[in-house]
Amino acid sequence: MSVPHPYWLRDNCPCAECRNPRSGQKRFQVGDLPDDLTAAEATEDGAGLSVLWSDGHRSFYPTGWDAADQDGDHRTEHGKRLWEAADFARGLPEADWSSYLADPEEKIAVLSAVRRSGFAVLRGVPVEERRVLAVARSFGYVRDTNYGELFDVRVEPDAVNFAFTDAAIAPHTDNPYRDPVPTLQLLHCLRNEAAGGDSGLVDGFRAAALLREEDPEAFALLARTPVPFRYRDRTADLAAEMPMIGLDPRGAIREIRFNNRSIDTLRTLHGAELDAFYAAYRRFAGITLRPELQLEFRLGPGDCLIFDNTRLLHARTAFEQAGGRHLQGCYADLDSLSSTLSVLRRNVAALDELEALFAGEGAGEYLGEAVTMAEHMLQAGRLARAADAPPALVAAALLHDIGHFHGSGLELMAGADNRHGATAAAWLSRCFPPTVTEPVRLHVPAKRYLCTAEPDYFAKLSPASVHTLGLQGGPMTSAEAEEFAAGPFAADAVAVRRWDEAAKDPSAGAPTFAEFRPLLLELMS
Amino acid sequence: MSVPHPYWLRDNCPCAECRNPRSGQKRFQVGDLPDDLTAAEATEDGAGLSVLWSDGHRSFYPTGWDAADQDGDHRTEHGKRLWEAADFARGLPEADWSSYLADPEEKIAVLSAVRRSGFAVLRGVPVEERRVLAVARSFGYVRDTNYGELFDVRVEPDAVNFAFTDAAIAPHTDNPYRDPVPTLQLLHCLRNEAAGGDSGLVDGFRAAALLREEDPEAFALLARTPVPFRYRDRTADLAAEMPMIGLDPRGAIREIRFNNRSIDTLRTLHGAELDAFYAAYRRFAGITLRPELQLEFRLGPGDCLIFDNTRLLHARTAFEQAGGRHLQGCYADLDSLSSTLSVLRRNVAALDELEALFAGEGAGEYLGEAVTMAEHMLQAGRLARAADAPPALVAAALLHDIGHFHGSGLELMAGADNRHGATAAAWLSRCFPPTVTEPVRLHVPAKRYLCTAEPDYFAKLSPASVHTLGLQGGPMTSAEAEEFAAGPFAADAVAVRRWDEAAKDPSAGAPTFAEFRPLLLELMS
Repeated sequence: MSVPHPYWLRDNCPCAECRNPRSGQKRFQVGDLPDDLTAAEATEDGAGLSVLWSDGHRSFYPTGWDAADQDGDHRTEHGKRLWEAADFARGLPEADWSSYLADPEEKIAVLSAVRRSGFAVLRGVPVEERRVLAVARSFGYVRDTNYGELFDVRVEPDAVNFAFTDAAIAPHTDNPYRDPVPTLQLLHCLRNEAAGGDSGLVDGFRAAALLREEDPEAFALLARTPVPFRYRDRTADLAAEMPMIGLDPRGAIREIRFNNRSIDTLRTLHGAELDAFYAAYRRFAGITLRPELQLEFRLGPGDCLIFDNTRLLHARTAFEQAGGRHLQGCYADLDSLSSTLSVLRRNVAALDELEALFAGEGAGEYLGEAVTMAEHMLQAGRLARAADAPPALVAAALLHDIGHFHGSGLELMAGADNRHGATAAAWLSRCFPPTVTEPVRLHVPAKRYLCTAEPDYFAKLSPASVHTLGLQGGPMTSAEAEEFAAGPFAADAVAVRRWDEAAKDPSAGAPTFAEFRPLLLELMS
Repeated sequence: MSVPHPYWLRDNCPCAECRNPRSGQKRFQVGDLPDDLTAAEATEDGAGLSVLWSDGHRSFYPTGWDAADQDGDHRTEHGKRLWEAADFARGLPEADWSSYLADPEEKIAVLSAVRRSGFAVLRGVPVEERRVLAVARSFGYVRDTNYGELFDVRVEPDAVNFAFTDAAIAPHTDNPYRDPVPTLQLLHCLRNEAAGGDSGLVDGFRAAALLREEDPEAFALLARTPVPFRYRDRTADLAAEMPMIGLDPRGAIREIRFNNRSIDTLRTLHGAELDAFYAAYRRFAGITLRPELQLEFRLGPGDCLIFDNTRLLHARTAFEQAGGRHLQGCYADLDSLSSTLSVLRRNVAALDELEALFAGEGAGEYLGEAVTMAEHMLQAGRLARAADAPPALVAAALLHDIGHFHGSGLELMAGADNRHGATAAAWLSRCFPPTVTEPVRLHVPAKRYLCTAEPDYFAKLSPASVHTLGLQGGPMTSAEAEEFAAGPFAADAVAVRRWDEAAKDPSAGAPTFAEFRPLLLELMS
């Protein structure tokens, strides 16, 4: 029996022997596979495809496995919304700094805008020096360069770099002489009282796409010609040879480097090709200056512009008053921004799933108790909060029994009663740190421990809890109890256990799951 | 009269109106040039080419201008020495950490090796945690990632990433799921007592070149297929779509990403092409495992390996003793390493030029004094050193009169007597900070100041100095003296001036220029 593309299929075996289920990292090398790999047996049913390989390995591919979550890197023109200035006639993509920090949906919107449109503006970022670093660190890592951790954009005496004068600066990308080029730039306005000094942005991908449409040969020439970019001062001599229009291997626009200030002498073209290059370059420059492409706005104190330096060209008008304009800027990178965005979406989705489970299955009977499962867990969370427990322990109390759920989104294994703590902990570990998952995992052993360690504890158990104690292995032996107590999360697990026992009051009502969302989200990040 | 490639030529006008002479940055945009640019007049002689452009601008291109210093970015296979293991039979490119720090030639050798061969080893780096960061900062900037500022490579309980287990790891590049990928990796060995745990390196450019030679179609397929790399854990979800073999626009090998652990499901190829891709991938993997390509060695405590993560694959053998192996690693980038290397070479070349000038022209008569120019300056440097002056002031005393030289390498303008301070300062500012150049620039005004401020100063001048005082403008007016004294470097300039007057003793001998080189080099960096 044959299967299609055996090496590809085998390389994608999802079993835990082949891949670490948490990271997706493979545990073998492609060269480890035999030279004559075939499927010895293959059967397919509604659940998926089972393969016994000629090397004896068994793989199971659940139906739909190859449609799994894979979002790409969003770095070419295909993952973007290419724009002209009029597309923002109704406003820029922006958010208030405090909402961005407090509300994950706001943060998702801002980071998505940077990825899709190439920029966003945060308003109300405190007008304090070095705050721009905190903005960068809210989604990624600051990239240090020879300009320092951050740079001040204001008039400097005897400036080597034009950025630090009062001159107008035409649309350009920063640091084209660097490879890797900083893929993100942040500019935080501390002061802008000058006449002039407005900001401008141009979508370089849009400009390149127009060039491709209007003059395909010029586009191709710019895309295939490495340009020597260079910057020198007393302590730096940076050089990068890259085309102005960078394409991915399939020809999609992926990176713009556009900065006439920093182009060193082009020596690799000759004859008519050199003239054709300059004609193409000037044509591209002309497109970037078209009024319909120029998005103009003014940064005021507290505004922080975040933009994609591999795509957007930025500009500023000349200004008059030397001391009246001061921005602080820094560089960061798109990969971390995308990672933060993906994790945030994953976390919000996980909370949505949990909230739906509390509202759905959670409304069901809780093993013979007088409260529902959801009421039980919400009461436990409330008791932890009332006890001023640290946030991780409040979360553990709230979520300790999710191993009883069978949610489709959760894909939980049916949590047999003596395993539901472990099942819940395994699922939660995708999003939560051990300070949350360990007390959850240990809340069943904690009951067995308490029945041994505290002579009167057994009497506090509800009839249902007495029943399950038997299924769970009964009270610990004293050796087991000693070992349990020595573990790093024993005290936390015991605390969760006490709230667990107390959270079965049919007359007490329960808080909503929504009340706990900010706390849960904070723990996830 | 026509000139070839007018836009190219005009774009490269070297005049100070068109370019900042210190940074090489252009002061205009390519689109600023008129659409019908031509040369109205052009004349060429031994000195160079003069052009009067149709827009009225005049350019002068000195003979040889277009053969100027332009070293490229050394990032493709063309700038490298591709290697196999036997090429290092006589030893690895290595240096002792203390020599690397003290001797610029050693540092140049190490950084050149990383650029050309892809790696070097520093020996004797103190066995202290976080020292790897100091190594990275000796030539560049640490790249922060989700793994932190640095990462510990040792066995971790329940590791999500295989690096942190005791397993063997096949040759791979790091972080292929990141874009920009960290272009350099550093690994500092703190402990290696385990059985196993040896290191291996493979030249990925060499492996790719072999694939191109042996199977051009496989090479082309790997070069044109973006591969989805991915890494996920609780706080990260990183994705990059890049080919395993990255080419520059002209087809030269520029970047290898090779890491089966982190390849997500390839979904963009179908049918026979998907099978061909896996065959090519397995063939490439096979080449990377050829014994003749595997350079194997063992890192001991204090060794720090620096390598190019866009080119070299690194590996380690399995090891046994869990606690017996501990490396600390961090990431950095090639562009800064190259910049540091270029600046260091430029500085060494500048010192060589200065040393040659002291030995050559410096042996000439010093304006009627009884010492040579070199003796005079060397004596001034010695006096400053004897007075425990800060290094910058010792350098200023040593170099204050280089404006009198006409060295070919220096390309100094003949320093007319009343301008030689300014001429020297302008040249020195390419390499030295204002704490050196300003006292040099002001050492002539300082004489004019002292003659006004100190009634008995004039009497201390040598006859030659009295003569030149007249040419230099004579004693300052009291208003001039007041302004001079208020400047930030007035006291330093006065100090230099006093050593200047005292450094004319024919019987005192002089130290060698070489004695000052370490101090000068330190000031340059």
